[in-house]
Formats: sequence, C-alpha cells, structure tokens
Amino acid sequence: MFKNILLTIAYDGSGFSGWQRQPNARTVCGELEALLSDICGALVQLNGCSRTDAGVHAKGQRASFISDCPVPAERLARVMNDRLAKDRLEGVGEIRILEAKEMPEDFHARFDSRGKRYVYRIRAGWGEAGSGPDVFSRNYCYQVREKLDAEAMKKAASYIIGTHDFKCFEAAGSTPRESTVRTSYSLEIDCSPAQNSGPATGAALQDITVRIEGDGFLYNMVRIITGTLVEVGQRKRSPESIKDTIASLDRSRAGHTAPPQGLYLDEIFYQ
Amino acid sequence: MFKNILLTIAYDGSGFSGWQRQPNARTVCGELEALLSDICGALVQLNGCSRTDAGVHAKGQRASFISDCPVPAERLARVMNDRLAKDRLEGVGEIRILEAKEMPEDFHARFDSRGKRYVYRIRAGWGEAGSGPDVFSRNYCYQVREKLDAEAMKKAASYIIGTHDFKCFEAAGSTPRESTVRTSYSLEIDCSPAQNSGPATGAALQDITVRIEGDGFLYNMVRIITGTLVEVGQRKRSPESIKDTIASLDRSRAGHTAPPQGLYLDEIFYQ
Repeated sequence: MFKNILLTIAYDGSGFSGWQRQPNARTVCGELEALLSDICGALVQLNGCSRTDAGVHAKGQRASFISDCPVPAERLARVMNDRLAKDRLEGVGEIRILEAKEMPEDFHARFDSRGKRYVYRIRAGWGEAGSGPDVFSRNYCYQVREKLDAEAMKKAASYIIGTHDFKCFEAAGSTPRESTVRTSYSLEIDCSPAQNSGPATGAALQDITVRIEGDGFLYNMVRIITGTLVEVGQRKRSPESIKDTIASLDRSRAGHTAPPQGLYLDEIFYQ
Repeated sequence: MFKNILLTIAYDGSGFSGWQRQPNARTVCGELEALLSDICGALVQLNGCSRTDAGVHAKGQRASFISDCPVPAERLARVMNDRLAKDRLEGVGEIRILEAKEMPEDFHARFDSRGKRYVYRIRAGWGEAGSGPDVFSRNYCYQVREKLDAEAMKKAASYIIGTHDFKCFEAAGSTPRESTVRTSYSLEIDCSPAQNSGPATGAALQDITVRIEGDGFLYNMVRIITGTLVEVGQRKRSPESIKDTIASLDRSRAGHTAPPQGLYLDEIFYQ
C-alpha cells in the first residue's frame, strides 16, 4: 500500500551544501533520501518545500514522499532519528525529524504550502564590547561589529510589509520568474541584550532577531532584506530610503547579502 | 631577538581531534603551529597548557612559544585572527586568539600555571518537554532526557570540594601518575530555565552549568565527575554516596563519562 508521508525536519545546515540533492556534495535532501531508501527498501524521492542554501538552517522544513514503506508513519520519526543520531550519548544528529504524518494521496509539500516564516539572527556590537566575535556562535548568527539602531530598523521594516514587486531584493542573475511580486504578511524585529555573554560584555552585545512571514520569497530575498536592514541599523542608509529602493526594482540599490549562517527556515504554513 | 609569547585562545573543538598535535589528524595545536610558522618564517612549537580531547572547547586555553617573530606581540592576535577567519563576512574562525603578550624568557604556559577552571554545560529535560534534543546545541552541551534534581547535585558536589585522592574519577587505563591527589577549590552548580527554547518548551528545559576550579585535573576527571553528578540528578545514586565513591579509589564505582561536547576549558590561573 503506497502512502504519502509528510516530514517536518530540523537541521543544522553548517555541514551541508544546502537542501537540494547534488551528485557530488553532501546535502540534507541527499542524506535523507539515502536513509529513507534504506529503511523503505526502495528508492525514495523527497519533495522538499524550500531549497535552503549551504549553511542555512531549518527548524521546520517540510518534505513529502510516496512509498510503501513498511514502517508505520507514527514510528518513522523515531526510527529515522535513531539512525541520524548514531554514536551519540543521549544525542542528536545534524538532522532531526520532528514529525512524520500520513497525508491524503494528492498532498504535495511544496505546491500545497501557503507561506513561510524565516528567522534571521544577528549578534551586534562586538567591536564596542571589546570581545571580538564569538567562535561558538559563528555558524548560528551574523556577528556585526557595530551596535545597531533597532528602532531605525523597525521603521525601515514597516515599508517592506505588504504586497510589492520585490525585484530589488532578488539575487542578481537569478533565473527569471513570471513575477517578482510577493506579499510579506509581517516583518518583526526584536532586540534584547545577548544571553550567555560574559558579565563584562553582556550589556554591550545585542541579540537581534528578524522574523518575516510571507506567501513566497525570491532567491536570497531574506538575506538581502536583512543586509539592507543592517545597513539601516548602522545608519548607512535611512529608514525612509527603503521606499525608493523597492520602487527602483534595482538589486544594486539594496544592501549586501547577509551571510547564510544567520538564516533559519522557521515554519511552513498550509491552508 | 627571540621573544617568549603567551597566547590566550578560544576554540570550538567540534571539528578538531583535540588540542595536541598528531601526524594525521586536524588538531588545534597543529593548525596554530602551521599558521605561526608561516607568519614567523620559521618552525614554531607551541607549549599548550591543557591537552583538551576531541570535541572539547576552550574559552581560555593558554600556550606559549619562543620565536624571533617579526610581528610585534601587540599586533599578533589581529594578524592571526584575520588569517583564521578568512572568507567570512564580519566573521570568526573556529579558533580565535584573545590575547598575545610578551612574557619573561623563563615563563612556560604549562609549568607556571597554578590551576584551571572548567565549565561543563548540560541541557536537561527534553524528554518531559516533548521537544527532543536540539540539533543546534548538539556540539555545545550534554542533552539529558530527564529533568535533574539540581539540589541533590549541589549536595553531592560539596563532597568533591577540597583535597582528595581522586583516583575514582580518573579514566581507567590512564598512564600511571606519581599521585592522584588533587585539590578542587570550588565546584558550583547553577540551574536556570533554558534560554532560546520555544515558549512551549522553555519552562520545562533546564540549563545546568557545572563550574569546577582546581590545582590540576586527572585524565577525564571533569567529565567523570559530571557523569556522576548527572546520575545523582537522575536519582540513580544519593548525594552522600559520593563520599564512599571517592574513598573507594575505584573508577568502576563512579558514574559514566559525560560526553566531550559539554566541556569548556574556561580559564587558566597563573601566580
């Protein structure tokens, strides 16, 4: 009996060349397909919802596959996690299956999704704190030297919410798409003193979280939006300038592409 | 003019086969010696203070070397960090030099040290929280399924403070030493709700920090003490039983060896 199974997946992207399978690179999709093919005793192909880049993380990636897998869906997460965490005391691997669930036969993880939320993590102010960047955070956030003006970033973010042609926030050289109009439902910026920093430096470091929800995202869109917001926070550009940047439809008018390690695919929405 | 230079070093041990140089493995000492030899234009040998194991981290490792390095000590940290962080936007490598300082010619990083502090990080309670272990913490703490009784662990820790023959906490098969008597100056246990865990699970997860200072440590001593304290926290052994365990001088009477990724060499003391 063939079943259509939907996986919810968390992964640390640090050690992977992204999600999408590639012939000669270690990818999240490639690892999971090899594992599932072994468990199911037949070749499994995963339909992932989002092709995260090398170094980008996920807390709620989704992928579906059709298989006559002998393991019932309700036991599959456990069976997969045991294999993914092998050799670790009480441990966990780089990938963890958060849920496996049987879906109607016509369900497709990507085509049926209605939107996504990404989170981008920044730690700012290591220059002023005198601490330098932190080796333990290097794969998990964007460490910016200057403290950032979070209020200016929030103001700038307000111009990005809504339905716009976001061509200025699409990586140059991307495959042309039918439309570069997208809707961002919300764009929140939280700023708090950094946790786990030493008493001497704690007061000076900022943990800034950029949280964006939308119906779809262009290639590198969240990273370019974040890079642009960081430049607003550094007072290199004004919050109001974002309006003109969007209207220009010109990638070269927007800011730099923030590095991959700060980006987390947080959740995918259905219905 | 030959100078004696002392480095203070932080590193993420996840990707290294430990500190000590080895012919066919990537080690922290090996990487730094290669870099320093290149910068100084002559072979450099580092005298490290502590031989951390594979996967163990450091926030304050110390190592000294003698060289006629053309870079002045006050510029050396910056020159090394630029090379260690190459290809990263505002970034940092796996190793970061926190300080480089010229010392008297008879100074030696290991022989002149008077003690060390280690920190061991535990995140406990993922079973009850229903969250499972976290992929992003897997290289940085010991993720224990059960919530732990921190008060019992503190009670147990009180028996470990002071001067004792700690043979029961030395890895079996270690090279015999002149003496297995050591003094632990302090052993603190802090327990707080885990940070950065989701709102649903935050209340149930514990971040537990074991902080131990002493004049010296036997091989795997901190990890065996931590494993024993975790078993007290799981109520598998009583706090008072630690007295008999120490008196037995028998490794098999102590608890399991906690995994390497939770351990941080925090600071080394001089004078």
